[in-house]
Amino acid sequence: MTDYYQKMNSWVPVDPDSGYTIHNLPFGIFSTPELSPRVGVALGDYIIDMRMLARLEFLEALCIDTTVFNRDSLNDYIDCGRDVWKKTRQILISLLRETDHDSPLKDHFEQVFVPRRRAMMHPPIKCQDYTDFYSSLEHATNVGKMFRPDNPLMPNWRHMPVGYHGRSSSLVTSGHEIIRPQGQIMPKDAEKPVFSASKALDFELEMAFIVGKKTEMGEQVPVDQTEDYIFGMVLFNDWSARDIQKWEYQPLGPFLGKSFASSMSPWVITMDALEPFRCEGPEQEPEVLPYLKQQKQATHFDINLSVEIRPGRYADLEVVSKSNAKFLYWSIDQQLAHQTVNGCNINIGDMMASGTISGPTHDSCGSLLELTKGGSSPILFKDGQTRTYLQDDDVVILRGHCEKNGIKVSFGHVRGYIGPAREPSK
Amino acid sequence: MTDYYQKMNSWVPVDPDSGYTIHNLPFGIFSTPELSPRVGVALGDYIIDMRMLARLEFLEALCIDTTVFNRDSLNDYIDCGRDVWKKTRQILISLLRETDHDSPLKDHFEQVFVPRRRAMMHPPIKCQDYTDFYSSLEHATNVGKMFRPDNPLMPNWRHMPVGYHGRSSSLVTSGHEIIRPQGQIMPKDAEKPVFSASKALDFELEMAFIVGKKTEMGEQVPVDQTEDYIFGMVLFNDWSARDIQKWEYQPLGPFLGKSFASSMSPWVITMDALEPFRCEGPEQEPEVLPYLKQQKQATHFDINLSVEIRPGRYADLEVVSKSNAKFLYWSIDQQLAHQTVNGCNINIGDMMASGTISGPTHDSCGSLLELTKGGSSPILFKDGQTRTYLQDDDVVILRGHCEKNGIKVSFGHVRGYIGPAREPSK
Repeated sequence: MTDYYQKMNSWVPVDPDSGYTIHNLPFGIFSTPELSPRVGVALGDYIIDMRMLARLEFLEALCIDTTVFNRDSLNDYIDCGRDVWKKTRQILISLLRETDHDSPLKDHFEQVFVPRRRAMMHPPIKCQDYTDFYSSLEHATNVGKMFRPDNPLMPNWRHMPVGYHGRSSSLVTSGHEIIRPQGQIMPKDAEKPVFSASKALDFELEMAFIVGKKTEMGEQVPVDQTEDYIFGMVLFNDWSARDIQKWEYQPLGPFLGKSFASSMSPWVITMDALEPFRCEGPEQEPEVLPYLKQQKQATHFDINLSVEIRPGRYADLEVVSKSNAKFLYWSIDQQLAHQTVNGCNINIGDMMASGTISGPTHDSCGSLLELTKGGSSPILFKDGQTRTYLQDDDVVILRGHCEKNGIKVSFGHVRGYIGPAREPSK
Repeated sequence: MTDYYQKMNSWVPVDPDSGYTIHNLPFGIFSTPELSPRVGVALGDYIIDMRMLARLEFLEALCIDTTVFNRDSLNDYIDCGRDVWKKTRQILISLLRETDHDSPLKDHFEQVFVPRRRAMMHPPIKCQDYTDFYSSLEHATNVGKMFRPDNPLMPNWRHMPVGYHGRSSSLVTSGHEIIRPQGQIMPKDAEKPVFSASKALDFELEMAFIVGKKTEMGEQVPVDQTEDYIFGMVLFNDWSARDIQKWEYQPLGPFLGKSFASSMSPWVITMDALEPFRCEGPEQEPEVLPYLKQQKQATHFDINLSVEIRPGRYADLEVVSKSNAKFLYWSIDQQLAHQTVNGCNINIGDMMASGTISGPTHDSCGSLLELTKGGSSPILFKDGQTRTYLQDDDVVILRGHCEKNGIKVSFGHVRGYIGPAREPSK
């Protein structure tokens, strides 16, 4: 049961192509017209109602206050700690795995298994602080060339996972409308800025990890001891208004060009589910400082990522980019070690996003800024439409999944719909 | 009672020099060995226990659930809205003002009035998102000259209140130890960075306002309609490690050079208490965009600020800077309008800090970076010691007060003690 690489099946019917397999068991917050928001675990087309599972006394071995499953965020469950996360997974696998004998759960199927199509998903965590890193060498180089042609990659970039603090109030989950932001824009060759709705609204293909254990001020998380501190990962879209960002970002970094919204996928994939998909990251040259130096080789994760756009209300979704989390230069362990090296305290539910994940080829770029070369080379869709940046009524979907030796683990997707700018007040 | 400018006295003994007068009535969270953390209002050497005041039915006219006073943050009280803030002030003034007849509160003095020296103060609010602006023209110019000699003031600076998202996990209140941060530093003329405790630890003299009403995503707070959205103000010290900041800040702005700690004063001065001290701000040239254009003239506040340093454990406190909030270029209304112009939603308890408040003269600079000209011109203390940046065991105290026509309103102080860097984990 602890061998991550041994293929298992569940007695619960699961579409073989579905990534919501018994190997996945991702955590989220769901509700139905009858059920208040609570913790659920996805399996196939179902959600396991963890509150009901606890009430039926299947989770006694956890030895925790199981009211943590009757919450509208995962934070209290996460606070139970890594031993409980692992034990929960073991219990679920033993209850769900196909074996010679019948699972005791079969007698409670209707009570415990909620059809996913009946459920509404909520943001999985309450996040106080959200950091956005900038950990893709390709993205940093591509963007650097456009914003600073003479100086694309800053001298610090290969020495540290550069990042900034994001705005956590505007974190939303899949399906939330993204209202086109307004603000100051400096038109090309103009002498003064204008007020306008953004004309360069973009997505950013990212992943984020969720902090699983708090630290006190002054404490550092060593780069090779991050296991207790990372609960799991989600897909993340850091919506960006490039025109607002370009005018505002010096010298203090991105602000209103980002703070209007960021979307996360509703299912949190645990680190145990991701373990079989570990892989090596790129060689880091020059050598990093000791606090960033990892002993293990398999510091990265092989997660296939894609971006689809539906250009307008009546069009079809089309894939515009395919990338992979393994392309990232900096690992999540290095990000966490860097975030805390100055003694900055972290809290359960904090999110740390990767930054845009671009690959080595043009069709693996993780933003329209890169895919359209700064808006100069539009994307052509099958119905003849073109896009440089996103228009109202467009839909953007990020997807992610891992696959190896017949084992599949899906991140599902995170979807955003672009709504028109609101009438400015007054 | 609604005439802000009419001098009043209280029957409670208040040192005439004290700024905790009946005109002030600041809100905070206190506890004593006997009393759990709760809402208090300062007056002279006392704290009014608002929970007890409610229990004695002096606050019935508020028509609110008075358990909001039995909390460890002001957030729930603030959530009652501006009408309640104003009515609370009226009730307190009518109970505390010296008149011909005895206040009914006199019979309950021992129950309601807690000596301030017996109280421990806690952070007054729970803050999810904290923004740091950069709103002093003098500071931006002084610092810009050092970091970017050829390009001190960015072209965007006079068009918008530039700001960045700060880290809210490390917000603390007065008295909290500030642990010297460690991190990457690029020594002058070196080829690669080193790991080190910061050798350029600095304070920043700032003020911050506290958001009093939430907005939804897409909503904008108009610059002339901010009253409901601002509960009050505090002193704010945005501790900064200049050497870490200098190496990391491009292109995404300050991160670990700031995120290790920021300190706020424990008493929140309400906007009603500050009303008599309104004044004009500096002329803004070029003219700002309409969403930042204010109708009223008195957009700023005349708040005297000072910084004291105690160099080491055995020295005396000495004033190293005197500044004033009226020197700020951008008003708090403009900051709030800018923060929300892109539709970014705000929450009760969000903090928006001013950025370092430097005045026009050298002795009004709000940071050591400026006072010591980037560390090249040390400060000489009376006992012969010198400082460029802060050393372990140093103490920094920020103070603030308003005074006009015999009316005095004090912000008290915010104190930070510099503790040594922790042993790095392995």
